[in-house]
Amino acid sequence: MNETVTACLLVIGNEILSGRTQDKNIQYLAKRLNDIGVRLMEVRVIPDERETIVATVNEVRAKFDYVFTTGGIGPTHDDITSECVGEAFGRKMFRHPKAIAALKVYYPDLELNEARLRMTTVPEGAELIENPVSAAPGFRIGNVFVLAGVPVIMQAMFEGVKHVLKGGLPMRARAIRIGLGEGVIAKGLGEVQSRYPTVEIGSYPSARRGRLGVSLVLRAVDPALLERAGEEVKALIRSLGEEPEEEAGEEEPAQPAKA
Amino acid sequence: MNETVTACLLVIGNEILSGRTQDKNIQYLAKRLNDIGVRLMEVRVIPDERETIVATVNEVRAKFDYVFTTGGIGPTHDDITSECVGEAFGRKMFRHPKAIAALKVYYPDLELNEARLRMTTVPEGAELIENPVSAAPGFRIGNVFVLAGVPVIMQAMFEGVKHVLKGGLPMRARAIRIGLGEGVIAKGLGEVQSRYPTVEIGSYPSARRGRLGVSLVLRAVDPALLERAGEEVKALIRSLGEEPEEEAGEEEPAQPAKA
Repeated sequence: MNETVTACLLVIGNEILSGRTQDKNIQYLAKRLNDIGVRLMEVRVIPDERETIVATVNEVRAKFDYVFTTGGIGPTHDDITSECVGEAFGRKMFRHPKAIAALKVYYPDLELNEARLRMTTVPEGAELIENPVSAAPGFRIGNVFVLAGVPVIMQAMFEGVKHVLKGGLPMRARAIRIGLGEGVIAKGLGEVQSRYPTVEIGSYPSARRGRLGVSLVLRAVDPALLERAGEEVKALIRSLGEEPEEEAGEEEPAQPAKA
Repeated sequence: MNETVTACLLVIGNEILSGRTQDKNIQYLAKRLNDIGVRLMEVRVIPDERETIVATVNEVRAKFDYVFTTGGIGPTHDDITSECVGEAFGRKMFRHPKAIAALKVYYPDLELNEARLRMTTVPEGAELIENPVSAAPGFRIGNVFVLAGVPVIMQAMFEGVKHVLKGGLPMRARAIRIGLGEGVIAKGLGEVQSRYPTVEIGSYPSARRGRLGVSLVLRAVDPALLERAGEEVKALIRSLGEEPEEEAGEEEPAQPAKA
């Protein structure tokens, strides 16, 4: 029916796997990709290990339309993402003149030592992705986009490169909040889902403004279907004696809700 | 040298991949597993899709010592984790009498309708994992631990079941904070890393109390090696004219640091 454009995110970094750092990149990219009609289908968090990175890049770049990596492109010994992506593509690495120029403009007084020059080293055939925050660029090669791990830099890089992505139709979402438990609504909700197989209906218990309840989230490409399925869900809720409440924006599931 | 016990976490849920929900389970499990000598080696976030879940469970349970799943064990139609794990193991599903009893105790006035009974349905051979928060249990089968997605419930389940995990030696960590850029320290740091191949040395630029800098994180199983490598890093920092600062606890990389 509609062409789905898919993406995979590789979060590369021991600091996420050790629990030292709370990831903030998954949610950002998930939302921004969805905005332009690209569906994030999988995320993998993997360590700073050459074999794992090379194998994973090669696996997922064959499987998804786009691959984004975050992390591991700084100047220190543990920053091995760039060379691993080069190896995955079987490309030699070279110091990109534009990357060197960017560092020189940004840090006129800094010595471009070997470590800093590592940040200018990209696989042959790569196109640079500008870093307006701290100059050292990311790059794109094939369908793989290599971005920084520090969220503010990653975001700036993504915003600068996203115009090259060709998205499909974006998923539209609608969320309806109820004070009922999931166990009350489950049967009827499953029936609505059966009638609308192309509408993705999720049920998420959580607390909101101190009140326990469930957010029913409907997502679909077709706005008319989304509207119709949403009205059926609302009618279901009313038939259970509750008034549905449309909700906007995100929330975080933090508290248990009665089943 | 030391036996490394490994784990993989599967975060199952469209709400993470759509960006609606910020994951909070990765960091918690990463830390708690590390505390008991289990190393989280990989995380995958995958959608609520049968084929993907079944294939991924089978792939990672063969690859890692332990697998944890979060999400998808509620009563609604989109909660398919339990049956997918059953399918991955080739087991039939059954309603576990203890799970039914737990729900009856917890919700004496609730009707145990079909939807709620789904939450008592586990693969044959599974052992229940207690849910002290909202009764509906998780379960363990083989090396796969199926936990709830709501963080407070996931955490309670994990704390209740972690005694069955056999960890290796825990990684100890030490963090040293410097006000220098990564580009200044990179060369010397790489040399320390070469001398201590079994000490994992990471370099993480970030802001802390408003000050830009870099956290150098050393992780190792052997406390003596960790101590010696740490002292070499400190000596390196002093040789660059800076006073190293031991730091405790976590921080979040939020701001760019000069390269």
